[in-house]
Amino acid sequence: MNAPAPRFTPKDPAFEARIRASFLTQRYLALLGTTLETVRPGYVEMHLSGRPDLLQQHGYFHGGAIASLFDSASAYAAFTLIPSHETILTVEYKLNLLAPGKGDRLIVRAQVIKPGRTLTVVQADAFGASAEGESLCATTIQTLMAVPERPLTPSD
Amino acid sequence: MNAPAPRFTPKDPAFEARIRASFLTQRYLALLGTTLETVRPGYVEMHLSGRPDLLQQHGYFHGGAIASLFDSASAYAAFTLIPSHETILTVEYKLNLLAPGKGDRLIVRAQVIKPGRTLTVVQADAFGASAEGESLCATTIQTLMAVPERPLTPSD
Amino acid sequence: MNAPAPRFTPKDPAFEARIRASFLTQRYLALLGTTLETVRPGYVEMHLSGRPDLLQQHGYFHGGAIASLFDSASAYAAFTLIPSHETILTVEYKLNLLAPGKGDRLIVRAQVIKPGRTLTVVQADAFGASAEGESLCATTIQTLMAVPERPLTPSD
Amino acid sequence: MNAPAPRFTPKDPAFEARIRASFLTQRYLALLGTTLETVRPGYVEMHLSGRPDLLQQHGYFHGGAIASLFDSASAYAAFTLIPSHETILTVEYKLNLLAPGKGDRLIVRAQVIKPGRTLTVVQADAFGASAEGESLCATTIQTLMAVPERPLTPSD
Repeated sequence: MNAPAPRFTPKDPAFEARIRASFLTQRYLALLGTTLETVRPGYVEMHLSGRPDLLQQHGYFHGGAIASLFDSASAYAAFTLIPSHETILTVEYKLNLLAPGKGDRLIVRAQVIKPGRTLTVVQADAFGASAEGESLCATTIQTLMAVPERPLTPSD
Repeated sequence: MNAPAPRFTPKDPAFEARIRASFLTQRYLALLGTTLETVRPGYVEMHLSGRPDLLQQHGYFHGGAIASLFDSASAYAAFTLIPSHETILTVEYKLNLLAPGKGDRLIVRAQVIKPGRTLTVVQADAFGASAEGESLCATTIQTLMAVPERPLTPSD
Repeated sequence: MNAPAPRFTPKDPAFEARIRASFLTQRYLALLGTTLETVRPGYVEMHLSGRPDLLQQHGYFHGGAIASLFDSASAYAAFTLIPSHETILTVEYKLNLLAPGKGDRLIVRAQVIKPGRTLTVVQADAFGASAEGESLCATTIQTLMAVPERPLTPSD
Repeated sequence: MNAPAPRFTPKDPAFEARIRASFLTQRYLALLGTTLETVRPGYVEMHLSGRPDLLQQHGYFHGGAIASLFDSASAYAAFTLIPSHETILTVEYKLNLLAPGKGDRLIVRAQVIKPGRTLTVVQADAFGASAEGESLCATTIQTLMAVPERPLTPSD
């Protein structure tokens, strides 16, 4: 999107606390060493450090690690705008790898571009970052769906 | 694709050994506990076990883990058909999450649907699997590019 | 999808008549000379003839014409499975152009691969066809949403 | 993309004349009444008027018409940056329909976000426009490939 980021009013005033609590329960994100940085209405930033086991054979971030960070950051960006009794499912996304993900950190910035009662569309960019600066390495557009939150049941 | 899988003649007769050797060097795939099962011309099958740190809060496979398995299996499927002096870069993909990834194993089957000198298109499906059977949970279509293999350099 | 097409039970027994009536009101489809061939639960086939004004400079079907046929056939495929008080909106799609669309006819076959109360996923293929046979030229995966049908209002 | 548009130096100084000449030969674009507005390095803007036969049953631009405009504008945006002996093929794209395409004009703005010797990535937005202003209705990301231009042959 070439336009400035839209401004949103969250439906759940406690959205940030809810997202930070959810983040702490995600063992997969802990496995990758993901950190949750900024959380704002319609926007989330997450990082990965350049741990050797997140890189591929040429020393760049592995495509799967990039996809994992995109998946989580986009879901949380959509999550910032839903009411407290709902949760978010990822419906689909498209991801373009534009350049090697190079550096000692991977940064994903996810921005809601179209909120909706049922469906939300998020655009996110990934940057390889080091002391020299940041460089765009991948971009994605994702569709997410708000669904009623439900308690965990034994059949889960 | 509703048609039967096409038959391909690999350009590198040692393609399977080359892929299995590459797989062993991928620390990210080791981190997730990925296993490389079938390797055939134009086709690769890979698995993940239902380790708790690959699941999300409801006990289903995390979307990032599914994406990671798709990314690798699709790249290796394209890899089966290239000459020995080339390697594969993922250009882009689209992924639809169709149902929760449920079970004690995640299976990804990746099939080349359009090989090409430069670009290869792969279609892949993911299934949650348990003693009761398999159930489709996600599907992807990926575009990959063959590029000359180059030696590692200090700047990598 | 490498699996056989699933079988579906339509919620609106008059689905075919409803789709054929809708088709006749679509002036854009008439402009392109689209024909609606098969309509079955979860499946629609549509054609375009190789009119010179549907071709690009090399005599192949124009990408926009292929996209238009995909858009309509996928929407009608989803339409076959919804109740009579709902209609279908296209949410998003991904389209890969695999080979030139060559021949005197373009055939699109659209198949629901995942029906749902709200979202439906359709996979469709396009074939250039002539007396010599058919040849796959493009493939798409589309996400569609069922929404309540509403009467036309002056503000439409 | 949330960053400012990059600046590009075209390889063919006559790129605009070449694109405008190509545009005039496209009978499909003439059928839809497409107009080619701005052509700049890495950027193209094209329009459609709100002719009744480009609209669907609710009076909004038909999804196929939007896709057709995206397809052409994105290809020409990539075209602005290639050398004079090459041409552009669309490899694949992803399109999200965000809101009804409303108004008496449809505007597509296509911007190269990643140029490359072989592959170019373009991001484009579509806006419904009227006297009241413009409103974003769809967005796409497209991958295009530069290939050698070849003379027309009888088998085309």
